[in-house]
Amino acid sequence: MRFDGREPKQLRNVTIETNYLMHPEGSVLITVGNTKVICNATIEDRVPPFLRGQGKGWITAEYSMLPRATESRTQRESSKGKVTGRTMEIQRLIGRALRSVVDLEVIGEKTIWVDCDVIQADGGTRTASITGAFVALTIALGKLYEQKQLAKFPVVEFLAATSVGIVDEIGVVLDLNYVEDSSASVDMNIVQTSGGEYVELQGTGEEATFSKKELLELLEFGEIGIQQLMDIQRSALGDLASKIGEKGLITE
Amino acid sequence: MRFDGREPKQLRNVTIETNYLMHPEGSVLITVGNTKVICNATIEDRVPPFLRGQGKGWITAEYSMLPRATESRTQRESSKGKVTGRTMEIQRLIGRALRSVVDLEVIGEKTIWVDCDVIQADGGTRTASITGAFVALTIALGKLYEQKQLAKFPVVEFLAATSVGIVDEIGVVLDLNYVEDSSASVDMNIVQTSGGEYVELQGTGEEATFSKKELLELLEFGEIGIQQLMDIQRSALGDLASKIGEKGLITE
Amino acid sequence: MRFDGREPKQLRNVTIETNYLMHPEGSVLITVGNTKVICNATIEDRVPPFLRGQGKGWITAEYSMLPRATESRTQRESSKGKVTGRTMEIQRLIGRALRSVVDLEVIGEKTIWVDCDVIQADGGTRTASITGAFVALTIALGKLYEQKQLAKFPVVEFLAATSVGIVDEIGVVLDLNYVEDSSASVDMNIVQTSGGEYVELQGTGEEATFSKKELLELLEFGEIGIQQLMDIQRSALGDLASKIGEKGLITE
Amino acid sequence: MRFDGREPKQLRNVTIETNYLMHPEGSVLITVGNTKVICNATIEDRVPPFLRGQGKGWITAEYSMLPRATESRTQRESSKGKVTGRTMEIQRLIGRALRSVVDLEVIGEKTIWVDCDVIQADGGTRTASITGAFVALTIALGKLYEQKQLAKFPVVEFLAATSVGIVDEIGVVLDLNYVEDSSASVDMNIVQTSGGEYVELQGTGEEATFSKKELLELLEFGEIGIQQLMDIQRSALGDLASKIGEKGLITE
Amino acid sequence: MRFDGREPKQLRNVTIETNYLMHPEGSVLITVGNTKVICNATIEDRVPPFLRGQGKGWITAEYSMLPRATESRTQRESSKGKVTGRTMEIQRLIGRALRSVVDLEVIGEKTIWVDCDVIQADGGTRTASITGAFVALTIALGKLYEQKQLAKFPVVEFLAATSVGIVDEIGVVLDLNYVEDSSASVDMNIVQTSGGEYVELQGTGEEATFSKKELLELLEFGEIGIQQLMDIQRSALGDLASKIGEKGLITE
Amino acid sequence: MRFDGREPKQLRNVTIETNYLMHPEGSVLITVGNTKVICNATIEDRVPPFLRGQGKGWITAEYSMLPRATESRTQRESSKGKVTGRTMEIQRLIGRALRSVVDLEVIGEKTIWVDCDVIQADGGTRTASITGAFVALTIALGKLYEQKQLAKFPVVEFLAATSVGIVDEIGVVLDLNYVEDSSASVDMNIVQTSGGEYVELQGTGEEATFSKKELLELLEFGEIGIQQLMDIQRSALGDLASKIGEKGLITE
Repeated sequence: MRFDGREPKQLRNVTIETNYLMHPEGSVLITVGNTKVICNATIEDRVPPFLRGQGKGWITAEYSMLPRATESRTQRESSKGKVTGRTMEIQRLIGRALRSVVDLEVIGEKTIWVDCDVIQADGGTRTASITGAFVALTIALGKLYEQKQLAKFPVVEFLAATSVGIVDEIGVVLDLNYVEDSSASVDMNIVQTSGGEYVELQGTGEEATFSKKELLELLEFGEIGIQQLMDIQRSALGDLASKIGEKGLITE
Repeated sequence: MRFDGREPKQLRNVTIETNYLMHPEGSVLITVGNTKVICNATIEDRVPPFLRGQGKGWITAEYSMLPRATESRTQRESSKGKVTGRTMEIQRLIGRALRSVVDLEVIGEKTIWVDCDVIQADGGTRTASITGAFVALTIALGKLYEQKQLAKFPVVEFLAATSVGIVDEIGVVLDLNYVEDSSASVDMNIVQTSGGEYVELQGTGEEATFSKKELLELLEFGEIGIQQLMDIQRSALGDLASKIGEKGLITE
Repeated sequence: MRFDGREPKQLRNVTIETNYLMHPEGSVLITVGNTKVICNATIEDRVPPFLRGQGKGWITAEYSMLPRATESRTQRESSKGKVTGRTMEIQRLIGRALRSVVDLEVIGEKTIWVDCDVIQADGGTRTASITGAFVALTIALGKLYEQKQLAKFPVVEFLAATSVGIVDEIGVVLDLNYVEDSSASVDMNIVQTSGGEYVELQGTGEEATFSKKELLELLEFGEIGIQQLMDIQRSALGDLASKIGEKGLITE
Repeated sequence: MRFDGREPKQLRNVTIETNYLMHPEGSVLITVGNTKVICNATIEDRVPPFLRGQGKGWITAEYSMLPRATESRTQRESSKGKVTGRTMEIQRLIGRALRSVVDLEVIGEKTIWVDCDVIQADGGTRTASITGAFVALTIALGKLYEQKQLAKFPVVEFLAATSVGIVDEIGVVLDLNYVEDSSASVDMNIVQTSGGEYVELQGTGEEATFSKKELLELLEFGEIGIQQLMDIQRSALGDLASKIGEKGLITE
Repeated sequence: MRFDGREPKQLRNVTIETNYLMHPEGSVLITVGNTKVICNATIEDRVPPFLRGQGKGWITAEYSMLPRATESRTQRESSKGKVTGRTMEIQRLIGRALRSVVDLEVIGEKTIWVDCDVIQADGGTRTASITGAFVALTIALGKLYEQKQLAKFPVVEFLAATSVGIVDEIGVVLDLNYVEDSSASVDMNIVQTSGGEYVELQGTGEEATFSKKELLELLEFGEIGIQQLMDIQRSALGDLASKIGEKGLITE
Repeated sequence: MRFDGREPKQLRNVTIETNYLMHPEGSVLITVGNTKVICNATIEDRVPPFLRGQGKGWITAEYSMLPRATESRTQRESSKGKVTGRTMEIQRLIGRALRSVVDLEVIGEKTIWVDCDVIQADGGTRTASITGAFVALTIALGKLYEQKQLAKFPVVEFLAATSVGIVDEIGVVLDLNYVEDSSASVDMNIVQTSGGEYVELQGTGEEATFSKKELLELLEFGEIGIQQLMDIQRSALGDLASKIGEKGLITE
């Protein structure tokens, strides 16, 4: 039995509230158990220097935690004057994952910024960020599409993420909370598409290792979680969900 | 008539939700119209170097905005690598204001950090931060008091803040939203105690000036707002409200 | 009786030496008692990005102290690698105050930088900076005007600043030196124009509060000081003083 | 056929030169094709603050490239004043990987710093760094062991790393050089032990995705490379190789 | 004939005003032609970490320019967030030069900070800084000596500095002003003691070179200037001048 | 007799290996005794802002040490977030020295970056860097010349550097290693051309001074070393050596 009474293959309660804040083009509050992340998408009418003049768009992410998202207070990165390695690693992961399911040619020379701000942390903040960011991004792109600024809907597949791990005396578990994450000997983040393909797979033995057999079991648990997360994304997106992967051109 | 239909002397809708996040010793979500600030208080068992060995406590504040709290996206201070002058000015103001109504000798060698994170901005973020921070701070100190770590309750008066200003064609108004704030010729932040005394008064002619007569009218409007804010703080604090300014020692 | 023998309503000795350094367009050494500030105005032929193309000018200030302006040595902000909150607050105040009495449209797309470098500090450095900076700025603008680069003289009123405060056993006093400032329970900076209007009013109860009656007395003391400071500015400016607030166009 | 004539399952030429520099406790030059990395291990007699007093050691890594390790010159991180996200991600990975095969209790309160400086880059710099760093670390620990400062030899298994990927028109390939890496649709770094277990698995679809079948083929190719790398490590280490995983205590 | 009418071997007018500011232990304003530098010495009761526990003192210098010391405004190093290479080079030179004529054992575990702040620059700011800093330092040490905190007077020789150079159509010249410095093909800074020995010699061909014969002529000119500078230092120091190099112990 | 058995006038073993790395336009490994520096030259098709539009080129240098180039590990400047004063001083010296023997007009609007990375340090790293950088630069310019991008060969003379010093009980010595350098009372770096002229002369009494007689002996020893270093540069450059100082135009 898990610490919080869940079955090994059971996700925590997940909700996705859309239109959470008034200013962003796409704004979502995702809660995964006690983990809460605000994901805001912003559309900017230019691309970074390395992409200028290529007619292609860009998606980039930033990730941060409130100082008291965590049990003890964490110093702000702004007062330290620099972003930690952990933050950089996470925001690079989120950006890369989102770009894999969007047709950047369709967006044109625009950048979509997705800000993931964790207001409460209880494990799995990076995977919750990806799952929520996908919805905020899709809503923002939906607005561009409605304004007929895009020749077709650029999101080609659903994308969600979860964590799996190996915990002593229990074995493989899905969607680790903070207590489980701290004690897990193996920890893996899985980012997957609705087509069942992998976008990112990051497995780490925390001062431990894992075998191929364990790897396969971890992947199987991940798939169960990803499917449920996509059902929740689908409800949150409403009508927009049906545009994902659709080929029709609106400018016809 | 004001832009949003309010009377000149009318506050926006104000709510204060306590126990907003699970980890902080005191946690509040304050909304003032469309302005929303999360205020979290953290108790740390040491004081800054300049106070060590004096048996006195300290209260300090940090202030930040989510990048999309604002209409267009603002770059994160952590990625800029430094805190702006505006942020520093605001967090110094919040800390100074809170310290004026707390007996720091009673707290002993502890620091209370109050983090004010604006998740949505529509004018008046610094005064909403002070009003909310007072409640978060009081709740955190209430926990110390219940644990009999304090000889008496150290909060000596209520403290709240609001803005007043002079807007063309309307005159003096209370609690400016963003649109009013941008067009006001005079802008004043008032921090006041329940005893009616001033803690901070910051009046600025924005490429304009103001007379003594106008100053007196601004102060009068401010007082009306402050009284109402303190009623809302009192309800939010519940039983704890009655401890404020109380002299009895618990350790007797 | 005050620590240095002054009456409560008495300013310290104030002198303003013009043409202090050879390179700046306007250069002034202001001494207020033992406080000494070099104020230099520089004219730059462009404006910050947010103003480009609007035909309007800008005035901005920077403030700094020599490490041994103070009783014990203060670390340089350049070796710390960042500007403190106090410095930022002061330089924002100086810039805002100066802009309130200059017609920025007349200046055209130019920036006037005013550098206030405190070489000796004994309280009141920010108000001495404003009073001196006004003179340095006016001299620099006088040079542009003589070169017929301005359609009229852009300074519309005199501007000066002083501090007032409440000191135990004495009550309200004008122009606090460092010893008084450190022990004052209330401290207020007043920036006023020759028309008697306020530009900035910053009153702070230092772990204390103040009543409306005390506020009015503080303002009255301030006014006495400001009038005398403007007489000294007027003598320092000589002929140029008479151009301030004048409407005639030179390009006719 | 691959760009450089290799078979899909073929590693580049790999050499490991030990005692490369005179000062470090362990110093290695590893070359993997045209990629060259200097790996230096330093022993420091203290641990980071979070480990003090626990009797446990620590291993940490830093990674950098010479500005002209790359085809066009890269600006130094020291003149930029900050370390990029890519560098942080890599150095965190190297440190984590090394810690997984060393018994930190045996080391006691010491930190081993492993510096990986890429002097020439042609793809696979992070995996070459791990493979070389393992040897430099083992040599440094060998010196401590010879000096009888360790109760037993703390390295419990061999550790090596390589990359695998999917390249258009070829399919799965082992040990990608820069040209292959730039064009690969899937890129995976594998860190494995001599026991065949995984320590890290980082697979990324670069604006692409991959199936479970492809994953299994990638892992199989990786295993082939890892085995050969460990043979080269074994020769480089000479007698020391036989100590790895050995249980005997020297202090008996 | 030189640009400003001087003979090749002629110094500019030099004055050294002592007790320039009220707070520092030693404070001097040195003017060399139009170059003006405030030199302040501060005594601190501890030494940098690398000297702790050795019973020896330390002397260190910091150098800075006001933004409008120069013809066009220079950005502050504090707002850039870093100190330039030129500044670092100069402050290292000043510190090194001062340490060469002071017996650091006599000072004991104290640091003397010497701040050289250029308020007006017209060439030769680093050599004027050294010449002025020597006087400020000697005055500060004189105070320690009077307070019987030093067993003997620790300054063993006079120290002064000047520049020499080679200017087209004139040849070797002494004490270059800014215009000469900008056009000189060779530029040399000489720091010398009253015993005629060199402490620092920094000769640079500015996109040019110089022969041994020219070097000897440069050194001869330097010696002429140094002698005169030491006469001016001697007058500025008054009675204290006679303590320099004296061997008697006061604690007997 | 010197510590390592050398005669006072004897250089350490010096080798210069060209084409050391594959990417740079010029790449050299210079070893001077145990000191080893990689010098890489990069050609960039633009000049710094202050030179734009003048048709002239620029040469600039950067210098760094691997953390374990030294006996004990030195923290990376990239993780400190700033470049030390020592590094800045050295890289400014290298750049200035190289520019003195190259005709920058001939290069046109290009910048040559020369990176000197010390991989092993045993004294004399800055002079080894200059001697090696000259060769790397000449090779890079040789490639431009072969591609007929230069009207003539822009290197006008050979340039090399060495150190001399005064060591107790031995007297003047040439080419100090780390042990000698640490104990020398006088230390001088000499940068000289094949014509025997000086480019830079930096003599420092390390808490000591030196007489003119000693200076002349130091210069004589330096000349002996410089001649030998230029012979080694000449062999390393092969055919290219004969182009140095040649006047003929290739575009005729």
